[in-house]
Amino acid sequence: MPNDFSAWTELANRLADVAGAESRKYFRQPLDVIAKGDASPVTIADRDAEAAMRQLIKETAPDHGIFGEEHGVENIDAKHVWVLDPIDGTAAFITGLPTFGNLISLAENGAPVLGVINQPISGERWSGVTGQGARFNGQPIKTRDCGGLSNAAMFITTPEMLTTEAELETFSRLRQAVRLTRYGGDCYSYGLLASGHADLVFESDLKPYDFMALVPVVEEAGGIMSDWQGNPLTLSSGPQVIAAANKRLHEEALELINR
Amino acid sequence: MPNDFSAWTELANRLADVAGAESRKYFRQPLDVIAKGDASPVTIADRDAEAAMRQLIKETAPDHGIFGEEHGVENIDAKHVWVLDPIDGTAAFITGLPTFGNLISLAENGAPVLGVINQPISGERWSGVTGQGARFNGQPIKTRDCGGLSNAAMFITTPEMLTTEAELETFSRLRQAVRLTRYGGDCYSYGLLASGHADLVFESDLKPYDFMALVPVVEEAGGIMSDWQGNPLTLSSGPQVIAAANKRLHEEALELINR
Repeated sequence: MPNDFSAWTELANRLADVAGAESRKYFRQPLDVIAKGDASPVTIADRDAEAAMRQLIKETAPDHGIFGEEHGVENIDAKHVWVLDPIDGTAAFITGLPTFGNLISLAENGAPVLGVINQPISGERWSGVTGQGARFNGQPIKTRDCGGLSNAAMFITTPEMLTTEAELETFSRLRQAVRLTRYGGDCYSYGLLASGHADLVFESDLKPYDFMALVPVVEEAGGIMSDWQGNPLTLSSGPQVIAAANKRLHEEALELINR
Repeated sequence: MPNDFSAWTELANRLADVAGAESRKYFRQPLDVIAKGDASPVTIADRDAEAAMRQLIKETAPDHGIFGEEHGVENIDAKHVWVLDPIDGTAAFITGLPTFGNLISLAENGAPVLGVINQPISGERWSGVTGQGARFNGQPIKTRDCGGLSNAAMFITTPEMLTTEAELETFSRLRQAVRLTRYGGDCYSYGLLASGHADLVFESDLKPYDFMALVPVVEEAGGIMSDWQGNPLTLSSGPQVIAAANKRLHEEALELINR
């Protein structure tokens, strides 16, 4: 495959198309929900969507590696690795909420350089490519400036992703500092932040396939993503992740988190 | 106005249309969010949507009472009272999540006999009329039978609606008993339950305009709604509400709540 952002972006969009088509087939249909080892609900839709994406990557970019949630790792030492979460927010998916997403990203030497968040029921697609900006359904987007932490709207998918007393205490401090905390959302929260509708996302218990696609979307829209210490996110980061609409808000949140 | 379910249903659908149109005007637009006395975020969209509905009720059913979230109570002792929440889930609305709803219900002698949950962005509408079944976008719907509490998918909008230690402990018992707890959702959760995609909704801190419209939708689809003691919901109920997909699950949940 040529070393070319436009070819990769085209492939990423085709991957989002096939994952979206598989998701739509199974959304709001009765499903046998299979409990995985880590107890997250996995459906046929997850597995079929990832299988379809992997096949397309192998046909189009056989020299690239793949790191998928459902079917594991291949050629992970390649310079370019596709990181896939076929259905982020499977709990939303299996309860019929159209806020799950197909997550597709490309890592270059471990760093996320391209990301797509695809919501196939509402037909909403966020994308970000390093140096080329972020888009929502093809239109350029920018994060907003709410003026500071005390005026921020914050997302977290579930308090159950905070698994230690220390994490819960940190969350409690943030929750008391912001204007509004909204639960639920999964990857959709990061898209809304990139589009200027929210200011912070504070999460833990995330794997690389949960956050890699979000980074170029948020950062190319003007936001910042990092771990809770402020380090950039790479293929070896996790599980703690924060996204902020701008540098000042990111600094304010980190200061409170690490106080 | 004639004493006639079909005329009321037609009016309810027209109310949902006008509230939906007002909501769409303001969704994902920059808004001055006004903090009310009770600190819930209220937007221009809320107020305009309710004003438009009230005008239509006064033109069409001048002998009916009105109980609205934003503009208060009129003729509340009438046999028939329209109970309105122009935008249920304003936190979802102002962060750009298409899971808020326009809630419209008709109470007869204080009991909910007709309800509409309208999601104007996705174009999804649930309705229920006493004795006439529940519908999703015009098609009849039924709740599902997940087999028991341990296999149930439960919704709660936010843990912050649980305001006492006793409420938090009760929630904790339920959360440990079910298969899956999903946060976020507001009125949309009850629609998903009525359509057979979820099994329980467990909430508190609700006002009549938050739950009256949900009751006919859930119950006409085969589910049960009550307070946490099992009493039917009326205009004077609240703030604790539970919805279950069927009688057995409702009994199982109540037993655990009141243990």
